[in-house]
Amino acid sequence: MATHKLLLLPGDGIGPEVMAEVKRLIDWLNAQGIAHFATEQGLVGGSAYDASKQSITDATMAQAMAADAVIFGAVGGPKWDSVPYDARPEAGLLRLRKDLALFANLRPAVCYPALADASSLKREVVEGLDIMIVRELTGGVYFGEPKTITDLGNGQKRAIDTQVYDTYEIERIARVAFDLARKRRNKLTSMEKRNVMKSGVLWNEVVTQVHAREYKDVQLEHQLADSGGMNLVKWPKQFDVIVTDNLFGDMLSDIAAMLTGSLGMLPSASLGEVDVKTKKRRALYEPVHGSAPDIAGTGAANPIAMIASFGMALRYSFDMGALADKLDAAIAAVLANGLRTADIKSEGTTSVSTTQMGEAILKEL
Amino acid sequence: MATHKLLLLPGDGIGPEVMAEVKRLIDWLNAQGIAHFATEQGLVGGSAYDASKQSITDATMAQAMAADAVIFGAVGGPKWDSVPYDARPEAGLLRLRKDLALFANLRPAVCYPALADASSLKREVVEGLDIMIVRELTGGVYFGEPKTITDLGNGQKRAIDTQVYDTYEIERIARVAFDLARKRRNKLTSMEKRNVMKSGVLWNEVVTQVHAREYKDVQLEHQLADSGGMNLVKWPKQFDVIVTDNLFGDMLSDIAAMLTGSLGMLPSASLGEVDVKTKKRRALYEPVHGSAPDIAGTGAANPIAMIASFGMALRYSFDMGALADKLDAAIAAVLANGLRTADIKSEGTTSVSTTQMGEAILKEL
Ligand SMILES: CC(C)[C@H](C(=O)O)[C@@H](O)C(=O)O
Ligand SMILES: CC(C)[C@H](C(=O)O)[C@@H](O)C(=O)O
Repeated sequence: MATHKLLLLPGDGIGPEVMAEVKRLIDWLNAQGIAHFATEQGLVGGSAYDASKQSITDATMAQAMAADAVIFGAVGGPKWDSVPYDARPEAGLLRLRKDLALFANLRPAVCYPALADASSLKREVVEGLDIMIVRELTGGVYFGEPKTITDLGNGQKRAIDTQVYDTYEIERIARVAFDLARKRRNKLTSMEKRNVMKSGVLWNEVVTQVHAREYKDVQLEHQLADSGGMNLVKWPKQFDVIVTDNLFGDMLSDIAAMLTGSLGMLPSASLGEVDVKTKKRRALYEPVHGSAPDIAGTGAANPIAMIASFGMALRYSFDMGALADKLDAAIAAVLANGLRTADIKSEGTTSVSTTQMGEAILKEL
Repeated sequence: MATHKLLLLPGDGIGPEVMAEVKRLIDWLNAQGIAHFATEQGLVGGSAYDASKQSITDATMAQAMAADAVIFGAVGGPKWDSVPYDARPEAGLLRLRKDLALFANLRPAVCYPALADASSLKREVVEGLDIMIVRELTGGVYFGEPKTITDLGNGQKRAIDTQVYDTYEIERIARVAFDLARKRRNKLTSMEKRNVMKSGVLWNEVVTQVHAREYKDVQLEHQLADSGGMNLVKWPKQFDVIVTDNLFGDMLSDIAAMLTGSLGMLPSASLGEVDVKTKKRRALYEPVHGSAPDIAGTGAANPIAMIASFGMALRYSFDMGALADKLDAAIAAVLANGLRTADIKSEGTTSVSTTQMGEAILKEL
């Protein structure tokens, strides 16, 4: 059996607690002989800063480079609000994305029937929702230069951020999105602000070309990002796959996540290019939720998003789609049995801790 | 009685139809001797392009400069999808904002009780909602240079947009927002992405300073724009006034608008600096909705957002707060009487056309 190398980066806040439940799952898979994972663990974010004054060290980056997949918890918290900008917790995550060249961020927004009532939206608007946001992750305003604050004198400063997109960056993320649409309901919606941004003009042009050249069988539609956001809130079921840039993707995927009513349930995958020789691709998997410092250490965290992120690793990095399906089914079954962590509890359900939820899913599996 | 100079720019699609209802109102106010408005009318957007190959002419710009307020309908439509970039319909609106220096965009999101069920959100989440989004309107990525597409050869192009903010731009929009908060529930939430953008760092710093120096009595809170968007969807009533930059404001105000379930109801005001000598400020008033080319000419358009925008003009440009209150009350009364245009109709209400709605509001007044 092939050995798969995993780097676990629990991070801050509830990160270590939810990661412990993935660790439990990995140990069990190894013990059962279902798979063989070799795991290493490292520091990232505030906890890395406390140890090394950096949000991620070169040594940890080297481990990430050598791993078949990185499993990432969450970073940040008020404790690190005033550390130097380049050492802020988020910088560790951004460096991982950039240096591993993880340009494709897949964020499914799925509304579990058992949880539809937790949404602030009406049941009929979100029940059965299943959309996939494909966000460009290594370009745009996140990494473009110049990115500066200059002192102009007289008490005036000037801040500059730069949104940059090249044709090839848009092409490759469009292909990821079209490929996903083909395996789903065959519909792709591309979002940008071409009426205001030149990057939106190029984005629109390139996605249209890729479609015409390679994906005529997929239904393609363009929406302006602001009306796209409105349509997400109004009637999200009109979408199948959405492809958009780094900053719009940040906003739109969070809004899509909130529609489902259960941020604690949503995983994500960040993928690099497939290597022509090894057929492998670099990858990082992380829950959509943050480090929730307010509930860290209380056992209240929901480990499902983290476990489901590991499920995406099984699917996208290790070609274990059948096992991933079983894991998803185990999560659905535990929810159907009425087990709930604090964030998703409702009348008539059974409250459980992080650990109890992790154990229940494992037992179901 | 003072004469107030208005420039009416109906624009495209349903713009002229909803503007006709404002015209009716103005004529009546003049005839009754309640106020004295001198109106001129001009072309903007696609209709201007058809007449002059420009989305707004210098002559119309000069009229706008000379007016006490510009009343703007809506621009755009598929007919002009392939006109040259600089002549696209939106360019006319952007030039008005920039050349009139309308840096403060006020977008109230109010959920009328009679319409709460039209929202995709649960009634308890949106009923009684009353928030004000203050969007910076002349800076950021909308106008920053460079803003280019360059041919790199080999089939590759590079698109660049630049987000620029100076201290004074953030200070003046913050003051507008703090002043509004003082007249409302005394709470301001500032949104940016300081964890990724330098402009977010400066934004956060300047808003914090203005607060400490001038507005300690107002409660100030900072949220990252992505979680802010989530919180808007989750529990919008936590907000009173929100202040944010041009691009985040575009997205967030549209999402806030959609929460109310009735885009056809929401007005906006775009204000310039108060002139120290004349105490006047340049201003443009426009509905939040677009030109809706699909329903143009059918009499189905809802004129309320346009009429309420004129109400904001009464309030912010002409110091006629009492009349504006009466107009708002007339709108609420007509809704309470069950009159509905197609966009907001529901069981047990009376369907009316654009004209009938305008007439009913006037009668109520
Ligand atoms: C933590 C932060 C830098 C990050 C982002 O803005 O990309 C987060 O919001 C996300 O969406 O993964
Ligand atoms: C028409 C367009 C240029 C405009 C914008 O992006 O500002 C619109 O979406 C708005 O919000 O007023």
